[in-house]
Amino acid sequence: MTRSELHALIRAKQSFLCVGLDTDPNKLPDHLVGDPQGVLKFNKAIIEATLPYTVSYKLNIAFYEAMGVEGWQILEQTLALIPEGEAFIIADAKRGDIGNTAAQYAKAFYHTFGCDAVTVNPYMGEDSLTPFLNDQGKWAIALGLTSNKGAQDIELLELKNGQYVFEAAIARMAELGSDENLMFVVGATQPAFFERIREVAPRHFLLIPGVGAQGGQLKDLQTLLTDDIGVLVNSSRMIIYASQSEDFASAARDEAARLQQDMAAML
Amino acid sequence: MTRSELHALIRAKQSFLCVGLDTDPNKLPDHLVGDPQGVLKFNKAIIEATLPYTVSYKLNIAFYEAMGVEGWQILEQTLALIPEGEAFIIADAKRGDIGNTAAQYAKAFYHTFGCDAVTVNPYMGEDSLTPFLNDQGKWAIALGLTSNKGAQDIELLELKNGQYVFEAAIARMAELGSDENLMFVVGATQPAFFERIREVAPRHFLLIPGVGAQGGQLKDLQTLLTDDIGVLVNSSRMIIYASQSEDFASAARDEAARLQQDMAAML
Repeated sequence: MTRSELHALIRAKQSFLCVGLDTDPNKLPDHLVGDPQGVLKFNKAIIEATLPYTVSYKLNIAFYEAMGVEGWQILEQTLALIPEGEAFIIADAKRGDIGNTAAQYAKAFYHTFGCDAVTVNPYMGEDSLTPFLNDQGKWAIALGLTSNKGAQDIELLELKNGQYVFEAAIARMAELGSDENLMFVVGATQPAFFERIREVAPRHFLLIPGVGAQGGQLKDLQTLLTDDIGVLVNSSRMIIYASQSEDFASAARDEAARLQQDMAAML
Repeated sequence: MTRSELHALIRAKQSFLCVGLDTDPNKLPDHLVGDPQGVLKFNKAIIEATLPYTVSYKLNIAFYEAMGVEGWQILEQTLALIPEGEAFIIADAKRGDIGNTAAQYAKAFYHTFGCDAVTVNPYMGEDSLTPFLNDQGKWAIALGLTSNKGAQDIELLELKNGQYVFEAAIARMAELGSDENLMFVVGATQPAFFERIREVAPRHFLLIPGVGAQGGQLKDLQTLLTDDIGVLVNSSRMIIYASQSEDFASAARDEAARLQQDMAAML
């Protein structure tokens, strides 16, 4: 999906929401626990309920990988449930390795699984990113400043040149990719750094986790918006686990609709 | 596998070699190309040929992931071919994510696939590492200073406090894990930094890629050895692709045996 197609989807749905399908077999509603098709049924119901309100789905690969071979089948089946062109599909895999290996990960997520984007870890530098930048309409989403407590350990260390590590990472990655094939992950819990982020990545789309459960606020994101919006805001647990009962899908829809309305007001 | 068990294996085989099973379906010997069981047959022959000379196998997960669901089946079948206790098994996955997600990756590689260790990316800090440190006899292997060109982009940036980013990363991770559950990746191509690495991680085992194809020298590693060796040296392409013909397994054995002899001389 190109940037202009993503922008058109955002305008049409009046939403920049990304729903995170971090489906944990141990957190399914009671009536689906123990059902061998439980995770797939759950994902199907969540996708059908939220599709009108979201422009993107983010699949947290760890949760599928933890189920072994079966998990990868469920991942494949889940991806097939998302109508082509109606949502921007992100494999949240946070991969990062030397060039020949990164090329294999790009192949896995762009071609074998057909996702639009994959999250990438910048620690290993140039050759761990560039293999993700060669496919028309496909996107690398590199970690910038993440929403978790551990962000202070490396990302927020100060460099000799006055930058933080995360700023140098974003600036270096932005030299390698354009705002047509590279996005950055920026946690909603880090508003103090939003201005500095837009200095090094003025027009790149940002994937923003951390609204809701982790404490980030939608209203703080206004300073990050570009002329074509330039942000995708992820919510996972707050939507997919909005209810533990048989009404989980309608509860998820209500939560997604609520976020979409707040977003429409910002557009 | 505990540290003392790994040390005993190194003494018994007089080797600290790790064979990398980065098996690419497009690089199989001619007679196995197009065989649906080609990758598995290849891995089986390589394991049988090299087991006397190696104390470890490292499976580069990207190559299996790129094959989709089938790749995960081949990964599972390959792992079953390695006799229990005769080699330290590393999932080279370079995972790293927030705590609840990292816990899923730990579950995937330690339990679902039964590996002894998994490589981890430190960029996101504390909570991306700690879920890998809770299982007796299981190991996180965190990226320190990697062997690739891109290492200069982030890892080798200088911090205000005089450390390099990679040193701060190793030092911080070493506060969280011990030398009984945490190793570090250090590229053989970076000998100029070996002393600084042993200052922040004096006794941690190091997983060392980059000998051979990438230009690293075995003799340079002497300064990294601990009283119980403390290093595993990985070789992938130089061993598994030593020949493109039907003699690939014996060529791999010869290459592994050659490295083992050089290592025995250092012990």
